[in-house]
Amino acid sequence: MSDPRYCAEIISVGTELLLGNILNSNAQFLAEELAQLGIPHYFQTVVGDNRDRLQSAVKIAAERSGLLIFTGGLGPTPDDLTTETLAACFETHLAERPEVITDIEAKFTRRGRVLTDNNRKQALLPVGAELLPNPSGTAPGMIRSPRSGLTLMTFPGVPAEMRRMWTETAVPWLHQNDWCRSILVSRLLRFWGISESALAEKVAPFFDLQNPTVAPYANNGEVKLRITAAAASEAEGVALIAPIEQELRAIAGRDCYGADNDSLASVVGALLHDRGQTLAVAESCTGGGLGQLITTIPGSSQWFWGGVIAYDNRVKQSLLNVSAETLAEAGAVSAVVAEQMAIGIQQRLGTTWGVSITGIAGPDGGTETKPVGLVYIGIAGPTGCFGVERRWGAERGRDWVRRLSAGEALDQLRRSLLNLT
Amino acid sequence: MSDPRYCAEIISVGTELLLGNILNSNAQFLAEELAQLGIPHYFQTVVGDNRDRLQSAVKIAAERSGLLIFTGGLGPTPDDLTTETLAACFETHLAERPEVITDIEAKFTRRGRVLTDNNRKQALLPVGAELLPNPSGTAPGMIRSPRSGLTLMTFPGVPAEMRRMWTETAVPWLHQNDWCRSILVSRLLRFWGISESALAEKVAPFFDLQNPTVAPYANNGEVKLRITAAAASEAEGVALIAPIEQELRAIAGRDCYGADNDSLASVVGALLHDRGQTLAVAESCTGGGLGQLITTIPGSSQWFWGGVIAYDNRVKQSLLNVSAETLAEAGAVSAVVAEQMAIGIQQRLGTTWGVSITGIAGPDGGTETKPVGLVYIGIAGPTGCFGVERRWGAERGRDWVRRLSAGEALDQLRRSLLNLT
Repeated sequence: MSDPRYCAEIISVGTELLLGNILNSNAQFLAEELAQLGIPHYFQTVVGDNRDRLQSAVKIAAERSGLLIFTGGLGPTPDDLTTETLAACFETHLAERPEVITDIEAKFTRRGRVLTDNNRKQALLPVGAELLPNPSGTAPGMIRSPRSGLTLMTFPGVPAEMRRMWTETAVPWLHQNDWCRSILVSRLLRFWGISESALAEKVAPFFDLQNPTVAPYANNGEVKLRITAAAASEAEGVALIAPIEQELRAIAGRDCYGADNDSLASVVGALLHDRGQTLAVAESCTGGGLGQLITTIPGSSQWFWGGVIAYDNRVKQSLLNVSAETLAEAGAVSAVVAEQMAIGIQQRLGTTWGVSITGIAGPDGGTETKPVGLVYIGIAGPTGCFGVERRWGAERGRDWVRRLSAGEALDQLRRSLLNLT
Repeated sequence: MSDPRYCAEIISVGTELLLGNILNSNAQFLAEELAQLGIPHYFQTVVGDNRDRLQSAVKIAAERSGLLIFTGGLGPTPDDLTTETLAACFETHLAERPEVITDIEAKFTRRGRVLTDNNRKQALLPVGAELLPNPSGTAPGMIRSPRSGLTLMTFPGVPAEMRRMWTETAVPWLHQNDWCRSILVSRLLRFWGISESALAEKVAPFFDLQNPTVAPYANNGEVKLRITAAAASEAEGVALIAPIEQELRAIAGRDCYGADNDSLASVVGALLHDRGQTLAVAESCTGGGLGQLITTIPGSSQWFWGGVIAYDNRVKQSLLNVSAETLAEAGAVSAVVAEQMAIGIQQRLGTTWGVSITGIAGPDGGTETKPVGLVYIGIAGPTGCFGVERRWGAERGRDWVRRLSAGEALDQLRRSLLNLT
């Protein structure tokens, strides 16, 4: 697998990447595609529109990878240097391709534009290179093997043009030329309610597996395990993954809430839908973020009716029936207010479940006993109501507190739904 | 300037980048920062969680750049290898830093969690390295000069943690250590209600300026112009930018809503605050997204009271007084229902302004006359109420429709607030 001749490397050419003007979404797209095709890929390089530095990057890449995929630097302006630099690296001459001139002329005529000398430059390709047609733009790419064990592919930097050329020409070429030797099949298990390090300790032996491999990730309060199998076919990969997934799920129990494209909202939605139950929310510190998260799910109107954003205490009283005495005694950020909010919205809208959030998102408003990051979640269901306290801390800021609170509310509802079965 | 000792290189470590699971937003952030600090930066490398390949990437980078900035691979799991690989590259030992253990323990105690052996690993740093504290997470970074003319900086891969560490510790360090030779000063003007191409046409001559430069960007429905000046001092840069900003604002009029860290929500909040006025929202298709956007602003409780998520028509009737006849005749997605929702929430909560959104976010639910992407916004204010129709189209998906609708609602409120002055 790690024979350099069978590895790909992505080389993104463009000073705008080095200035941080644009995100390198081309590299992500190509990386994902290579993984799916089962082509190993261990390095990516970004380099500016500069002949010497591009040449040095090509030299380094050609020593460690057999397939160099270039994006960018094919445009008509003088700082577009990829094609001529690659010709120079491997001592070839450039020649004008009449079919490219014809193609550009036709496109320009359709758009009412006139060919300039700059555009003629785009028709220059190294002698012996295979044309990689660009159906949606004027800059074609090329496929070329300057020596045995080394293939170069060039694409323009415009994402839509690059993607189409990749899919329509490069992928079939890679299949025909025996690059796609094995398939990578992967499955992402998703967890909530356990830290990355705690989960990593529980499943530590799995990280030593060779095929499939298991690797942990964490972001936005969510922990993930990616199981990746290299196999000769999709079915074989799935079969390799299944027993590992089963073992991991058995170890994690309900902390594993789903897989792949599942989200807490989609899992909660499916549970509610199966039971013919409905949901409403009452939000203070999240200000609508819980409802927003729920309604990312298409079709959520089948089980989500809506709710109240009770940012001001007057709204908690008037729309959610939170008692003035409780607010005065326990404070708006308390378990008892969270419970009253949850019951309030459940009763007001007549839904099966009411879920509430009240907390201190910060940066201001914290006290010694009620610090920034303190949040209460209320869950009112068919069999009663309970409140949960969470302390997210102030360090990661207001958005973090709000995001984790919305996720935790959905997770508490998920666990309640599972308990009731 | 291009003496390698004075150049930076970004090395992003993480197999998830090679698998295309995540976008390399860290590299973009750092690239932009380096440009602003005037630190030359000619290469970026992405490499997986693999000791040998990371080591080879470090070797290459150390030959061509004097400041190597690493992101990723500082986590608690065994595949987090950056620190130990850097120690091995430059033949240093790792030693546990008691202050890091203390810091992690304190963070864990606050969150009610227990330290694991994996976490202790995060306190190991090469002997002689300067600690780069991580106020928001458990993985600290380091700053280390293993030899003259070479500096290493390590950051965790979590963007929020990395950014804070960069801003709070790394940038001051770079200033103190004479890395920032010339200053780039920039100002970002923000626009809503005009397309990128329409704005670009209006301000086309500005794109030819040399110092300051003017460049357009667009994302999430918002258009931006970045004015960037190279100068010997901050004050000189600001003076170069000011007249250009003035001219651009004069051309754009009210389509320019703010600059730099302004958001539509913060601008609307400042206008409401100045006037001593209050706001409530009534949301259907955005499901809480407008409230969520408003409450990203710290202190928004001073002028935002809350609202109703009226996802189901029953909620529109019971909490917002939308008439059953209107719903039956005009449909829930109509200007008249948007107006009734806005008036309903304004009256129910007793705020100065009521803003509503009702629309078809898709992917399902569209018809010939009411296609996916059709949205109505209602604005009820001190002098009356009006509805606005927008057609965002279905092509860019549900999230796009919802995000643009929330932004447009804030922009309509902003223009109404300005008109009333």
